Amino acid sequence: MAGALTWNRYGKSSIRLVKVRRAADPHDIIDLTIDVALEGAFEKVYTDGDNRGCLATDTMKNTVYAFAKVEPLDHVESFAVKLAEHFSEKPGVSLVRIAIAEHPWTRLHPHAFAREGEEVWTTVVTYADDAASITSGLRGLVVLKTTDSAFAGFPRDQFTTLPETRDRILATSITAAWTYAEGFDDFAQRAAVRAALLETFAAHKSESVQQTLYAMGEAALAACRGVVDVQLSLPNRHHLLVDLSPFGLDNRNEIFVATEQPHGLIEARISRK
Amino acid sequence: MAGALTWNRYGKSSIRLVKVRRAADPHDIIDLTIDVALEGAFEKVYTDGDNRGCLATDTMKNTVYAFAKVEPLDHVESFAVKLAEHFSEKPGVSLVRIAIAEHPWTRLHPHAFAREGEEVWTTVVTYADDAASITSGLRGLVVLKTTDSAFAGFPRDQFTTLPETRDRILATSITAAWTYAEGFDDFAQRAAVRAALLETFAAHKSESVQQTLYAMGEAALAACRGVVDVQLSLPNRHHLLVDLSPFGLDNRNEIFVATEQPHGLIEARISRK
Amino acid sequence: MAGALTWNRYGKSSIRLVKVRRAADPHDIIDLTIDVALEGAFEKVYTDGDNRGCLATDTMKNTVYAFAKVEPLDHVESFAVKLAEHFSEKPGVSLVRIAIAEHPWTRLHPHAFAREGEEVWTTVVTYADDAASITSGLRGLVVLKTTDSAFAGFPRDQFTTLPETRDRILATSITAAWTYAEGFDDFAQRAAVRAALLETFAAHKSESVQQTLYAMGEAALAACRGVVDVQLSLPNRHHLLVDLSPFGLDNRNEIFVATEQPHGLIEARISRK
Amino acid sequence: MAGALTWNRYGKSSIRLVKVRRAADPHDIIDLTIDVALEGAFEKVYTDGDNRGCLATDTMKNTVYAFAKVEPLDHVESFAVKLAEHFSEKPGVSLVRIAIAEHPWTRLHPHAFAREGEEVWTTVVTYADDAASITSGLRGLVVLKTTDSAFAGFPRDQFTTLPETRDRILATSITAAWTYAEGFDDFAQRAAVRAALLETFAAHKSESVQQTLYAMGEAALAACRGVVDVQLSLPNRHHLLVDLSPFGLDNRNEIFVATEQPHGLIEARISRK
Repeated sequence: MAGALTWNRYGKSSIRLVKVRRAADPHDIIDLTIDVALEGAFEKVYTDGDNRGCLATDTMKNTVYAFAKVEPLDHVESFAVKLAEHFSEKPGVSLVRIAIAEHPWTRLHPHAFAREGEEVWTTVVTYADDAASITSGLRGLVVLKTTDSAFAGFPRDQFTTLPETRDRILATSITAAWTYAEGFDDFAQRAAVRAALLETFAAHKSESVQQTLYAMGEAALAACRGVVDVQLSLPNRHHLLVDLSPFGLDNRNEIFVATEQPHGLIEARISRK
Repeated sequence: MAGALTWNRYGKSSIRLVKVRRAADPHDIIDLTIDVALEGAFEKVYTDGDNRGCLATDTMKNTVYAFAKVEPLDHVESFAVKLAEHFSEKPGVSLVRIAIAEHPWTRLHPHAFAREGEEVWTTVVTYADDAASITSGLRGLVVLKTTDSAFAGFPRDQFTTLPETRDRILATSITAAWTYAEGFDDFAQRAAVRAALLETFAAHKSESVQQTLYAMGEAALAACRGVVDVQLSLPNRHHLLVDLSPFGLDNRNEIFVATEQPHGLIEARISRK
Repeated sequence: MAGALTWNRYGKSSIRLVKVRRAADPHDIIDLTIDVALEGAFEKVYTDGDNRGCLATDTMKNTVYAFAKVEPLDHVESFAVKLAEHFSEKPGVSLVRIAIAEHPWTRLHPHAFAREGEEVWTTVVTYADDAASITSGLRGLVVLKTTDSAFAGFPRDQFTTLPETRDRILATSITAAWTYAEGFDDFAQRAAVRAALLETFAAHKSESVQQTLYAMGEAALAACRGVVDVQLSLPNRHHLLVDLSPFGLDNRNEIFVATEQPHGLIEARISRK
Repeated sequence: MAGALTWNRYGKSSIRLVKVRRAADPHDIIDLTIDVALEGAFEKVYTDGDNRGCLATDTMKNTVYAFAKVEPLDHVESFAVKLAEHFSEKPGVSLVRIAIAEHPWTRLHPHAFAREGEEVWTTVVTYADDAASITSGLRGLVVLKTTDSAFAGFPRDQFTTLPETRDRILATSITAAWTYAEGFDDFAQRAAVRAALLETFAAHKSESVQQTLYAMGEAALAACRGVVDVQLSLPNRHHLLVDLSPFGLDNRNEIFVATEQPHGLIEARISRK
């Protein structure tokens, strides 16, 4: 054998789960997509085809559904920790990673709901050495501001053609993930962090996506004392001003082409001091 | 030549347009994806490579942006009619089809907005012989009800294995398109039709997707006197009950697998008598 | 009731089926996505919630799998006809529509295969009044030519800015559907039609997408005597020349931006005279 | 300020570039999607809105197009290194990451091409401290084997229901990325690595996806001496045997449902000893 197995991970992804809480009236609904992954001493599965230590990914899926029946599912973070604890006790496992995407629904009626759109709420629980690291977040939250966004004062080299602007559209799809301090468990704070991100995006006088990102990160830290750090990823979905001058028309920041390719991509982590 | 050109249509699709109404404070935003298509006497373009009658699709795109500057864009239906009238005057054109998808945004702040999700509002204007036919609608409105949905009493043949049920999840993604009577122009009624569709989906005691679809169609007709007919397309996004009995657990309509493939597809048109 | 049911159709869509022919060595594989839809006298299902005439879409799915076991699946067209005949005998059915997308695989090894990509081969069989109408086709066949494509001589109005060109990139994703004469059943001719479309796209001296489309349609008719007409849909995926002059560089049709939005869309039907 | 900027990266993503080599006859075509990202001392951009050190992402895009004109683009790895060297000289930059996806085309004709499908070839060049780390790979290579795949001997707990099998379909979409030794530059070896992955997938007598993955990794190392390690990610796209017994039919591994959700996911890195 020329090669050594220097890292491995396996599991079941995209387990689709809907739980209806029927005891309550009106009904509640929880809609999740769950990934389970294990790391550990699984070398012989790879090198010898010896499956005696290989918990089937089908078993992982069954376990998720059985736990979903028994657990209250009040917070996906707690549910992920319960699953992680269970899998961490299997032979050979050194690390469990549970990732959950929660698809939010709005109530229409005591027993009926509408999907809110592309935004999903996320959690990733990493469990190793009898301890859980808990990250919560969101992705697919698409926002746009029509003013209070500038980009000027940047360096110019032989390949620079972009004009400076004091007023442009700023549009992005927010991906955020924040890590909670060890032992923190007030997971309802997710709403406060989300609100802080949105309010800051809306109200910030932006000199760049970077500056707005940083302000959003600071607001997230301020909104929830349990947050240790927050990572943000903000694509800059450029809205290009249409040149209407060939048609004898002014375009004072009114008519734009929305584009998706190419896009800027600004990413950073802001940590509590 | 072995072949005759028996039908032709051409145009520009997926013209992305964002208009900011800055005169107003707070700002308004309109976000559209527009398709322009022409039919007519364009045979020589195809058979002889003679482009003298072929309005460039790039010109169509420019026209859309110039009109967007000048027109108020209060209702996409009116904007589509204006575009259709313009293109119908070009030489050779016998029919113009303008299709617009409007992407709704929710206000966060006087100058900031969040996308509401995958739902889009649609209009198709077909203009021929100096008359416009106007259809409005929506697609991507995902809804689910946790009860008041049955499916029983259906015929059984040698390939039938589905059990009857008096209580199941009903989930769909609504596509609707309704045609307005000639001369109707109160396009703000879209909101009333949309509300009627949602309320009926939520409140209906369903014996089948078909029966719910029909009730939704009747409600749409009742909600707006200008609607002549409504066509609905409702995929049945099956939610499968998980068998938890191997794990010693009951599953009384609590734990489901959400699926997308395969799906039922129920389509019908309901017309005013 | 304010509304009358003026059209209806229902069925099961996206039935995913893989058949392995193991009797053969090497193995063969057929990979299909199938839609079944019925039209007919189903009014009471909609208006009264009376399901006695409503063949379950789950039964349709089971029927497809059972037929797939028994039928040879040599040609998807024949398989679709068999399914259509079966469903046409159900009470109330006036029309059956079977649509099949075939996903092609390339052989790697006697028992292993690689997917060829996004191209799928399609068939739609419409069965009514004891007769089948058979259409075959393809979609997702992405092609590009680097020269022998012009667009000039088109009319100029107040919104025209596009320069004329004698040499541009032409890129498209071919969707084609051709109808066979009644009784024709040499479905292996699909390969000849496909080859004719590709060869004509490649070799044609193009004055416009329209002219190339027409030449492709004529070639398809010439390639297979059983083809009565062919419909083509060709998006024009514009490749924009990059202006390198600010950097002191020429760009003689060498460096392009590939775009998907907006795109031209050229559609026509060519029929045997 | 409550927060410190503990990591940051920014750049331009999804730069779409097509280069036609017209000097040659027949023409050649290179079709790329490029991401540029920089890390470095950009704190003041975030914290103070000071853009004096912030190279515009639009400038990055222009740079890519200008370099594409001048560079031969024989291998995307070399092109990525050239770009990385250029950006590494900008003030404040400590690390440059260039990621390129190459979309392969098959020649139809001297000047015409067809896309091969969803497979893309990838490279990631990370440049820091005057040294480049070069990874090449592929993604979207969908393969399936109809036999020589087993999964048995795995542990059973209270949530295990999966039967053991000695013969199943194995289907996956290969993602692979291999790192070259410092100074290695025979990038044409990509073809040899790709061939080794495919041949091993096809010929391996598989006891598990894990075991096949490991064999593929070893084959990749054996195929190219310049490869230091290879990381593979193999989703297990389950093909479920259809139960035809209710219809009085056997199903001896002939009729399957192809599924995408949920899926197993097996990932590992194999390193040269």
